[in-house]
Amino acid sequence: MSKEVGITVSKNEDFSEWYTQVIIKAELADYAPVKGLIVLRPDGYSIWESIKESLDKKLKETGHRNGFLPILIPESLLDSEIGDRLALRPTSETLAYSLYSKWIKSWRDLPLKINFWNTALRAEIKGTKPFLRTSEFLWQEGHTVHATKDEAEKEVADILELYKKTIEEELAVPVITGKKSEKDKFVGAVYTNTLESLMPDGKALQMGTSHFLGQNFSKPFDVKYLGENNVEIFAWQTSWGVSWRLIGGMIMTHGDDKGLVLPPKIAPIQVVIIPIYYSKEDIDSVFDVAYQVRKDLLSYDIRVHIDSRPNLTPGFKFNDWEMKGIPIRIEIGPKDVTKDQVVLVTRHNQTKTTIGGVKKMGAGSRINSELENIQKEMFETAKKILEERVVRVSEYQQFKEELENGKMIDCSWCGNQTCEDKIKEETGADLRVIPSDNTKAETCIYCKNSGTTNALFAKGY
Amino acid sequence: MSKEVGITVSKNEDFSEWYTQVIIKAELADYAPVKGLIVLRPDGYSIWESIKESLDKKLKETGHRNGFLPILIPESLLDSEIGDRLALRPTSETLAYSLYSKWIKSWRDLPLKINFWNTALRAEIKGTKPFLRTSEFLWQEGHTVHATKDEAEKEVADILELYKKTIEEELAVPVITGKKSEKDKFVGAVYTNTLESLMPDGKALQMGTSHFLGQNFSKPFDVKYLGENNVEIFAWQTSWGVSWRLIGGMIMTHGDDKGLVLPPKIAPIQVVIIPIYYSKEDIDSVFDVAYQVRKDLLSYDIRVHIDSRPNLTPGFKFNDWEMKGIPIRIEIGPKDVTKDQVVLVTRHNQTKTTIGGVKKMGAGSRINSELENIQKEMFETAKKILEERVVRVSEYQQFKEELENGKMIDCSWCGNQTCEDKIKEETGADLRVIPSDNTKAETCIYCKNSGTTNALFAKGY
Repeated sequence: MSKEVGITVSKNEDFSEWYTQVIIKAELADYAPVKGLIVLRPDGYSIWESIKESLDKKLKETGHRNGFLPILIPESLLDSEIGDRLALRPTSETLAYSLYSKWIKSWRDLPLKINFWNTALRAEIKGTKPFLRTSEFLWQEGHTVHATKDEAEKEVADILELYKKTIEEELAVPVITGKKSEKDKFVGAVYTNTLESLMPDGKALQMGTSHFLGQNFSKPFDVKYLGENNVEIFAWQTSWGVSWRLIGGMIMTHGDDKGLVLPPKIAPIQVVIIPIYYSKEDIDSVFDVAYQVRKDLLSYDIRVHIDSRPNLTPGFKFNDWEMKGIPIRIEIGPKDVTKDQVVLVTRHNQTKTTIGGVKKMGAGSRINSELENIQKEMFETAKKILEERVVRVSEYQQFKEELENGKMIDCSWCGNQTCEDKIKEETGADLRVIPSDNTKAETCIYCKNSGTTNALFAKGY
Repeated sequence: MSKEVGITVSKNEDFSEWYTQVIIKAELADYAPVKGLIVLRPDGYSIWESIKESLDKKLKETGHRNGFLPILIPESLLDSEIGDRLALRPTSETLAYSLYSKWIKSWRDLPLKINFWNTALRAEIKGTKPFLRTSEFLWQEGHTVHATKDEAEKEVADILELYKKTIEEELAVPVITGKKSEKDKFVGAVYTNTLESLMPDGKALQMGTSHFLGQNFSKPFDVKYLGENNVEIFAWQTSWGVSWRLIGGMIMTHGDDKGLVLPPKIAPIQVVIIPIYYSKEDIDSVFDVAYQVRKDLLSYDIRVHIDSRPNLTPGFKFNDWEMKGIPIRIEIGPKDVTKDQVVLVTRHNQTKTTIGGVKKMGAGSRINSELENIQKEMFETAKKILEERVVRVSEYQQFKEELENGKMIDCSWCGNQTCEDKIKEETGADLRVIPSDNTKAETCIYCKNSGTTNALFAKGY
């Protein structure tokens, strides 16, 4: 593959340019004719479908159901004085709850747990960055209503766990969970739970949020129910969402200088077979084995593809599929046919092995285990890197130094926004997450006062 | 159930009001705060999910893949002179093909078969009618590119068949397939294939279309490929779509004065179990059987729900679930427990039967067959009604009379738009579809000239 066709920058040299090239060249997405908007090509949408399918299943198993909300909302629901201009929907709290107030009458209607798979629009003024900064994005937003405060808070926590499972097990991206500070919580929430990950450029990426809304919306939107004792009670609410930003986080976490590296669970193609032949006589025997292996893999529900494009060299094909991040490449040449073997190359660690006895034993079972291994190894590698990059500090000078080294800073904080603001002003770092475990709390990293909690700081996307 | 809670008009008396009441009261959809827009509630979205799942499977099996297109397009793609105002996407041909021209380089990239599950926006000036007339609607739009004319025309025909299968087998709505006239084809198409059904009020409903675009878009949008002989060739294209209008057609076809009647394949709940008890002593034994039946049905992948809401009479529950169109209701009372039986009521024909020997044989297998029967019977009944309502006529006077009787008119036509226009002007009927079978062609119903084709006329939605 020529330099122009492949990725022309290294991930360490120019991370931002690398990210864009990988997405465009691996054909996940393309820019739309309107600034700030992107188009998903089939390989990109397929990844979104995998995430959606996995999450949708978990949500349905826990009693959530899907709905649909239109893209336009009255400007009045954006807190405006004018009643009849329309706005594109940036998020659906106000739209959904103006309807929920009609739909909920008695305690029998609760809990109401509806999820919406749709798009949202928010004008991006900075440059477009596929999956990270776009004016329209695909996401899901869940909006639930409960009879009691306890039940709503349990929902907020349960959803955070469900998100963590999906992100870590499907995308192989490790996350740190906890609360946002008062400053960075969703403006309508009592508190916001978050999942944060750290990207190779040292910036933190918020992977999803789960908000406890308390009665902040139920009172103004009149979401109340008749209790068993015939008294009207304002309901307790939650909202939560993850977007295609998850795909951006996955690309940045796993990709390398050759391009994408996809975890098997969400790869549109899990195994690509490259038949190699140098003469016409070899073609039949090589393809015979290729089809036999393909059939075997299909019986294990493995997503397999034979690259039979003529007039392209094996080398070109190797590079092409490496750039697209396909987890396993199988090479089958005339010598392999003779030896009853296939050559297997795993994308994530560039390791080549040979599998023998293909005729008798097949390759399906062994490749299936290999895919499971890859998924596990990718997560473990990423988790190890994340753990190494979260550094505990107790001095502000060290805070600044480690931040410049691309670390996420684990330190103590007094809980006052003044210190949070000062740190942001002086270092550019945000308070990303307040972890639930606060056993390490000492004096505040900035003001040295006590009464502290633990907090993680990093620069953000 | 009080009159106000149930459906208060009969389907024959006020079809339009009946339609709206059924949708709102059975909680499929609700009006959004913006005129022309609706919200899907979980039962409505669940039906859309069933359609989507069934169609998506068929599309993937035939080599189509999904993508995502943003909601905003530059006004310039709407044939305007101004370049930087934005428009909401009414359909995606121009947006998709401006990208396809970049994505397609050689014959190896063809065929390109991408489908988009999204929404489209078209300002509706007449009143909102859920699923039929809304300014935003859920749909899928497929856009394919082929190397040859033959392959593209085969795609157009294959998709029509695939749609017919989905609509008839899942929604149990019979359709008539064929071509649209020049006047009613999609403006950018060489020709448009259509699926038409006839509603109980005598109006035809277009259920979906599949367009052969020829090279009408590939030339202006520069969608061309380098052939094997190294010559650039303009590609051949198709586009096709069905929308949530299918849900509207299904509601109108099957619903009755008690409300919705859902075909089992797309019903969110297929079987509802109503435990009946008059004293506290009965509760345990009745619920024991209810849970046992539920477990048995779940093992057959039947979507089953026990209505355990307290303080509501069995009669209220019967009416409630009948309004919601659930295909089978199972009643279990103390007498049934004693007799080791359950009572089964099928929604579509209001028939009550008793199933005995529940302990020994279970109910799952028998209810599973019953659901298949219901699906079949609903389609056959609807098909018989459709066939009776398509009337062959050869005199214009008879045409007008039968049209007033709510019939669809099967007649001969000279192929000239003048006659088509005159018929529309004088009777209000459109030429809905030119069926592929033209063996019956005689002289034109309007001008009496020969050179005729067969055509079906009806008033439309």
